[in-house]
Amino acid sequence: MISIDDSLKALEAFILASIPLARAMDLRIAGFDGECLRLDAPLKPNINDKGCAFGGSLAAVMTMACWTLVEATLRRRGDDCDVFVADSSIRYLAPVWGDLHAEARLAPGADWSTFFTTLDARGRARGDFTYVVPGDDGKPAASLEARFVAKRRA
Amino acid sequence: MISIDDSLKALEAFILASIPLARAMDLRIAGFDGECLRLDAPLKPNINDKGCAFGGSLAAVMTMACWTLVEATLRRRGDDCDVFVADSSIRYLAPVWGDLHAEARLAPGADWSTFFTTLDARGRARGDFTYVVPGDDGKPAASLEARFVAKRRA
Repeated sequence: MISIDDSLKALEAFILASIPLARAMDLRIAGFDGECLRLDAPLKPNINDKGCAFGGSLAAVMTMACWTLVEATLRRRGDDCDVFVADSSIRYLAPVWGDLHAEARLAPGADWSTFFTTLDARGRARGDFTYVVPGDDGKPAASLEARFVAKRRA
Repeated sequence: MISIDDSLKALEAFILASIPLARAMDLRIAGFDGECLRLDAPLKPNINDKGCAFGGSLAAVMTMACWTLVEATLRRRGDDCDVFVADSSIRYLAPVWGDLHAEARLAPGADWSTFFTTLDARGRARGDFTYVVPGDDGKPAASLEARFVAKRRA
């Protein structure tokens, strides 16, 4: 279900070219099926003093994955928007000892049709998203809930 | 009130040596008066595609500042602990167009004496912290509330 096409490669190149920290983290779009977007990052540049993933890297990867999900969805629709995070809640549940990879998707109860209807009517919309980093035992090692805003460019 | 002594310089060197992303962000401990700790980072390595601070960098700086506050406080007390973030809530209120600098401190209602009493009794304690990035107009541009856990090393 997960694939990365030319438009995602272009979005990844845009991210890596315009956000130095994304380059430092070695972020990669691993796939997008229209509903969930997977963003990966190797452990090495994102390690902490204890040898597991740095909390700041986890926060940045999860935030960036949701941003990329919104941006990729809007680009596929032909929408040119500024997308920014409004707020987020993160739970760090277990140390992450390997590479970072997980999937961003709409939060339960949120839907794209409401998001697009609002965007078309007001030039601005907000949506709720979730991101989970799976742990070794199948339980989440970290999770994020975040609200993002898209604002159509003039 | 803000100064940085040799022990803080050693802590900063430890952070930069052991956390690659802290190096990429060019994090600096700007000062610590025993209650609030200031962590700075220049905008350039933390910029986004819109020319303001990348949300992931803001999340990482704020998380790191609270971690550093706990670590610095424990080191001053002679405590050798693993310190890790348990959860956090971030509000992104306005774009940050300049260098990142702000102060981490205990959350309202939290106090170090409870934290230390619990740590001494159980070898483990948790505390709530806040971090604010001031905006251009004196209002916060971003704020974080986070819970950290310190666990005494065996």
